Amino acid sequence: MRLLLHSAALKRVETRLTALGLPLEIVTVDNDRVIREGGRVLAPEEVRPEAVWLSLDTYVGRQLRQFLDLTLGSDTVRYVQTFNAGLDGPHFRQMFDRGIKIANSSAQAPSIAEYVLAHVLAEWHPLARQRENQRAHRWGRIPFREMGDAHWLIIGFGHIGREIARRVRPFGSRITAVRRTQTLEPLMDAIAPPAALPDLLPQADIVVLAVGLSADTANMANAGFFARMKPGSILVNIGRGGLLDEDALLAALDKNAPAVAILDVFREEPLPTTSPLWDHPKLRLTPHTSAGGHGTLLRGDELFLGNLPRYARGEPLVNEVTERTFG
Amino acid sequence: MRLLLHSAALKRVETRLTALGLPLEIVTVDNDRVIREGGRVLAPEEVRPEAVWLSLDTYVGRQLRQFLDLTLGSDTVRYVQTFNAGLDGPHFRQMFDRGIKIANSSAQAPSIAEYVLAHVLAEWHPLARQRENQRAHRWGRIPFREMGDAHWLIIGFGHIGREIARRVRPFGSRITAVRRTQTLEPLMDAIAPPAALPDLLPQADIVVLAVGLSADTANMANAGFFARMKPGSILVNIGRGGLLDEDALLAALDKNAPAVAILDVFREEPLPTTSPLWDHPKLRLTPHTSAGGHGTLLRGDELFLGNLPRYARGEPLVNEVTERTFG
Repeated sequence: MRLLLHSAALKRVETRLTALGLPLEIVTVDNDRVIREGGRVLAPEEVRPEAVWLSLDTYVGRQLRQFLDLTLGSDTVRYVQTFNAGLDGPHFRQMFDRGIKIANSSAQAPSIAEYVLAHVLAEWHPLARQRENQRAHRWGRIPFREMGDAHWLIIGFGHIGREIARRVRPFGSRITAVRRTQTLEPLMDAIAPPAALPDLLPQADIVVLAVGLSADTANMANAGFFARMKPGSILVNIGRGGLLDEDALLAALDKNAPAVAILDVFREEPLPTTSPLWDHPKLRLTPHTSAGGHGTLLRGDELFLGNLPRYARGEPLVNEVTERTFG
Repeated sequence: MRLLLHSAALKRVETRLTALGLPLEIVTVDNDRVIREGGRVLAPEEVRPEAVWLSLDTYVGRQLRQFLDLTLGSDTVRYVQTFNAGLDGPHFRQMFDRGIKIANSSAQAPSIAEYVLAHVLAEWHPLARQRENQRAHRWGRIPFREMGDAHWLIIGFGHIGREIARRVRPFGSRITAVRRTQTLEPLMDAIAPPAALPDLLPQADIVVLAVGLSADTANMANAGFFARMKPGSILVNIGRGGLLDEDALLAALDKNAPAVAILDVFREEPLPTTSPLWDHPKLRLTPHTSAGGHGTLLRGDELFLGNLPRYARGEPLVNEVTERTFG
């Protein structure tokens, strides 16, 4: 089986990959974008991979476009393992329509869930004012709101929503999941379909957009959505920028509903330096980095090393993409 | 039964207290320190309470000393419900020695546990640097360390230690509890006695002092303790100031073990404005406020309203203090 992967990924997993005992022909792309098989440099048309691993390295090293071109430029690919959780890029649809088995990633979910907890707790705990008091040598007690009796509305309940709920639950918060599939899971207190949002939003203290971007979800957080939000509430977007109408959000923040928005994703990335979002005092912006925990890369390796032999044996993959994944 | 309580506490629970159907004679102290029974003002020697509720109000309103004097100045008291978790004050020992039933409080534990999670996550997530980038309109990714593979050492595993562990666990961290009683609980990965600390400290990424102050625990976090801590680790003290040698901590921070200390309690409170702790860049100080979540007061009310009928029926109290509580 010919396997295309990033040289940095090969370096991390080479011993374990060899130990799988599969008959592999390994083709790598380096940060210099040169394609190699062993010592030999290959032309793009010589790659002809059966399996392609779009590891996080292809994104970090900016070879993702090259990997996608090599994948879609060949008719030999049967299996793609990607680091992406959301498959809104058109290339995944194209691969799927060609019958390529795709497995997306759950590797970023624990990192993103930590990000959400850290950022939300930092809003309700008066960390900044406590630092000010410390600088002033001031013994000033500041009461805080506990998260324990908050109501979380988690829109989208895949790997990411689930990992958030798992960490929120022991605080005692109430968790309502919004999802098309109406199956109550142990991590939820309630489940509701997207159509119920107008009734649910007024009750929610923390609303998290953790859903994929599709025709159904694009611009879901718009003026009408914000008009139903509870004054003083927190909005978190770790899904996709396209889920949210940024102009409508700016108007909503002026009405204190939400009171604060924590945004890791934007309609245009990198966010243009001229965007009015940067300077808004009620916005906490991070550069699409919620998956940036040190464990994401390692969990991605585990996923690939588990899925490659499954593919070789013709078994279903972990996180195998179906028509439904596209929304 | 004559019950002494703060007028603010009575105001909150009066309806529910009446509904208990107990034959109560209610004596209150107001923020003005005047003692009243119904409309009548009482002299201290007229109070003669059987039950005393040291609710959080007595502390907030600065009548705690008065309540303790009324309790210890009478030979009629049989039951004291206190808002305290730690009973290191000598008055509790005196009450206990007189045969008074004392129930301490678990009401602050969820609040303190939230405080610990919020403050520790704020260290590992680059919140401050992300705010700087936002101010500069800079799209700068900063990787972060996940808490998932951290090793927590929780010293003291009562209500507070347990509530911390409950919230830490779904992150995937390893939790070692240090406690005299060697009973492994589901919230722990391991349990060890205090004598094992020299072997445990070098492995711990986060060390929490959540133990009561007693002759055995005073100054436990001293130069020898810090010398065993892991470089880069975090120390949290939400127990008592007397557990920790503040001068030794300042010296240890210079050696990066711990790298950061989060201190909510101090040897002298309020912390003197001249203390060198205030200006240390590796210290995060809060004014004994980790219990300051809005739920603490309400949980304290629940505890008292549950325990009073238990006392009246001669049943064991929830959180009833034993000889062992004193260390």
